[in-house]
Amino acid sequence: MRATVMHSAGDVRIENVADSRIVEPTDALVVVSRACICGSDLWPYRGLEDIPETGRRMGHEAIGVVEAVGADVRTMKAGDVVVMPFAYSDGTCVFCHEGLHTSCIRGGFFGTAAMDGAQAEALRVPVADGTLFALPVGKDDALMPSLLTLSDVMGTGHHAAVTAKVSPGKSVAVVGDGAVGLCGVIAARRLGAEHIIILGRHADRIALARELGATDVVSERGDGAVERVRQLTGGFGAHSVLECVGLEDSVRTAISIARPGGAVGRVGVPQGETLPASQPAFYNNVTVSGGPAPVRAYIEELLPDILEGRIEPGRVFDRVVSLDEVPDGYRAMDEREAIKVMIEF
Amino acid sequence: MRATVMHSAGDVRIENVADSRIVEPTDALVVVSRACICGSDLWPYRGLEDIPETGRRMGHEAIGVVEAVGADVRTMKAGDVVVMPFAYSDGTCVFCHEGLHTSCIRGGFFGTAAMDGAQAEALRVPVADGTLFALPVGKDDALMPSLLTLSDVMGTGHHAAVTAKVSPGKSVAVVGDGAVGLCGVIAARRLGAEHIIILGRHADRIALARELGATDVVSERGDGAVERVRQLTGGFGAHSVLECVGLEDSVRTAISIARPGGAVGRVGVPQGETLPASQPAFYNNVTVSGGPAPVRAYIEELLPDILEGRIEPGRVFDRVVSLDEVPDGYRAMDEREAIKVMIEF
Repeated sequence: MRATVMHSAGDVRIENVADSRIVEPTDALVVVSRACICGSDLWPYRGLEDIPETGRRMGHEAIGVVEAVGADVRTMKAGDVVVMPFAYSDGTCVFCHEGLHTSCIRGGFFGTAAMDGAQAEALRVPVADGTLFALPVGKDDALMPSLLTLSDVMGTGHHAAVTAKVSPGKSVAVVGDGAVGLCGVIAARRLGAEHIIILGRHADRIALARELGATDVVSERGDGAVERVRQLTGGFGAHSVLECVGLEDSVRTAISIARPGGAVGRVGVPQGETLPASQPAFYNNVTVSGGPAPVRAYIEELLPDILEGRIEPGRVFDRVVSLDEVPDGYRAMDEREAIKVMIEF
Repeated sequence: MRATVMHSAGDVRIENVADSRIVEPTDALVVVSRACICGSDLWPYRGLEDIPETGRRMGHEAIGVVEAVGADVRTMKAGDVVVMPFAYSDGTCVFCHEGLHTSCIRGGFFGTAAMDGAQAEALRVPVADGTLFALPVGKDDALMPSLLTLSDVMGTGHHAAVTAKVSPGKSVAVVGDGAVGLCGVIAARRLGAEHIIILGRHADRIALARELGATDVVSERGDGAVERVRQLTGGFGAHSVLECVGLEDSVRTAISIARPGGAVGRVGVPQGETLPASQPAFYNNVTVSGGPAPVRAYIEELLPDILEGRIEPGRVFDRVVSLDEVPDGYRAMDEREAIKVMIEF
C-alpha cells in the first residue's frame, strides 16, 4: 500500500510500504477515504521537531471504512464508516471516563514514531472500540469535510473554547487564523459568545473567520495587538483567549490579552519548553489551561450540530488533493497558499 | 510614629517617620495592634527584588483599630476593630464584583513603593469601605492570631486550594511547608480533601502540617519528589496541587506532580519571568491557575470557621515580637528559625 513518509524537514514522499494489518485482537483495519494535513504536521516539516532516521509516517486525521476487526472488537464491524480521532484511546480507563482521552493509559497518537499515520491508503487502529466513532452517513455524504474535522481541528477548537471557559456574554479572543483558530471561532460562537475577536493577518482566513462568527479583527502583533484587544474590550482584555498557534510569541500575546481573572485555553502545540510571560499570568490571576484535545470525548456533542447544519467546520478545507499530491499539499500549507488540505482517496 | 523600613537586602530598620494621616476622603487611619512578617517580605530581604533608594516601607498584613475616617467613608467608624487585607480595593468595581479584589481598578498593595506598610504603629488605608473588614470581637480576643491570617496567609492558602479545584474525594499535594503551605493544608482539608500530601523537609513544619490535616509527607525534591507523589497517588499524580513557594524548581515540581487533567493553584510569588515545564503542563492538560489571592473576597466565608474554632490558622505563628524586634524577626524567618512572626504592639 502507499503511505506518506517524512524523511527530513521539507522532504515528504509517497512510498510503497508494508500493508497495514490487524496485530492485536482489539485492532481494526481501516481503509482511509479522507484524511488531511494538519498545522502540527508543519512543525517537523519546518525542522522544529526531530524526525526518526527511518522516516515518520504522517497523518492523524481520517475518515474511512472498517475493512476488518480483531477478535475482541465488539462495537465496530466491517463496512462501518468511521471517524478516527488523532489519538487512540480505549474508552475504559480512568482518564477516558473523565473525558480526557488524550491521556488514556493504553492510548497514544497516530502519525508518530510509535504508530503509523493516516495519510495512507489504510491504517491499523488500536483499541478500535474506544477509538473509532461510527458515523450515521455514507462515506460520500456531502457533510464529509465537516465530519472529518471531528478527527482533530473542530474538536481542538472546541477544546480551546472549553478550557478558556467560553460562555454566553463573555468576550473571546482567538489567537491564530489557521484551521484550528477558525474552528475556535465556530466553537466560541456555538457556546454563546457574541463578541469574538480574531488575531490574524491573512485576508482570506480573516474573511472566513468573519463569516464563521468573528466580530472583530486584530491584525497587529505583539504590544500593538495587546493594545488593540484592550481597546475592543473596555480596556481590560478578553475573558477567554483561545491560543491556536503554539509559538512563544503567540502564547505571550494570548496571556497578555486576557482580562484579569480570565482564562487562556491553549491548543497550539507548544514549541518552547517554558511558558513565557508567567508573571503577567500570575499577577492577573489568568488561568492557563488546555492541551491535546480529547476530541473523542467531543464527537457526541458536536456531531448533531454538523448533521443538522448548524456548524460547518468543513469550510476550513480550501484545497483537495490526491494521495500523490500530498507533498504539494504540505508545500501549499507551509507557504500559506492553503488553510487546510483535505486528501481524498 | 515608628515604622519598618527596608533599605537594602538584609537591612531592615525601625525608624521614626511622618505620622500616617488621612489624605483622601475615602481613607481610614488605622492604629495597628497586630501585624506580621510575610514569606514574600523575604524576597527583597534576600536581594531577589529591587528596593527603592529611599527605602521600602514593609508589611501588608494587619489587624488594628480605626482611629479616624475620611468624610466619604460610610461603613467604618472610629473604634472598629478591623482586619486589613494585603491589597486595598474599593469593593465596587467590576473586578471586586467578580471577587477578584486584587485586580481592583482603584486598588493596590500595601508595603510597596506606592503605599506604606503595616509593620508600623499606624497606617493610612485607602478606599476603606471596600478594603477593611470590621471584626465582631475585641482587639485582644484570643482568636486574634487566626483572625490576623485572614489578611493574607489563610486567604492565600484558600485561594491556592480554590484555583487548584480542591473538592471532596480529590487527592491534593501542597508544595511548600511555609505559613501559606500550612494554610493550604487547612484549606484543602476544609474543602473536603482526605488525601493531602505536603512536600517539605522541615521537621517542625511537617509536624504541624500533620496536625492540620496532611496525611502524607514527601521530603524528596525534584525527580525524587515527583516519583514519590506518583507512588502515593496510584501512579498518576495529584488532582490538585497548591504551589506555595514561587521558585522555578517548585513550580516545575508542582506541574510535574499534577495528574493529567489536574490543576495547579499557584500563590507563591513567582521569581521567574517564565513558567518552567510548559510542555508537561500542555501534554497532560494540566491547568495552571492562581495569583495574588483576593483575600478580601474570602473573609466572609472563612471567618465563621475561625470564630467557631473549626480551623486554627493562627497556629502558623510560632514567634511573637515587638516592633523594635522586627529586624530580628526577619532574620529568624530568613534562617527558618521561625515559620511566621507576629508583631504585637
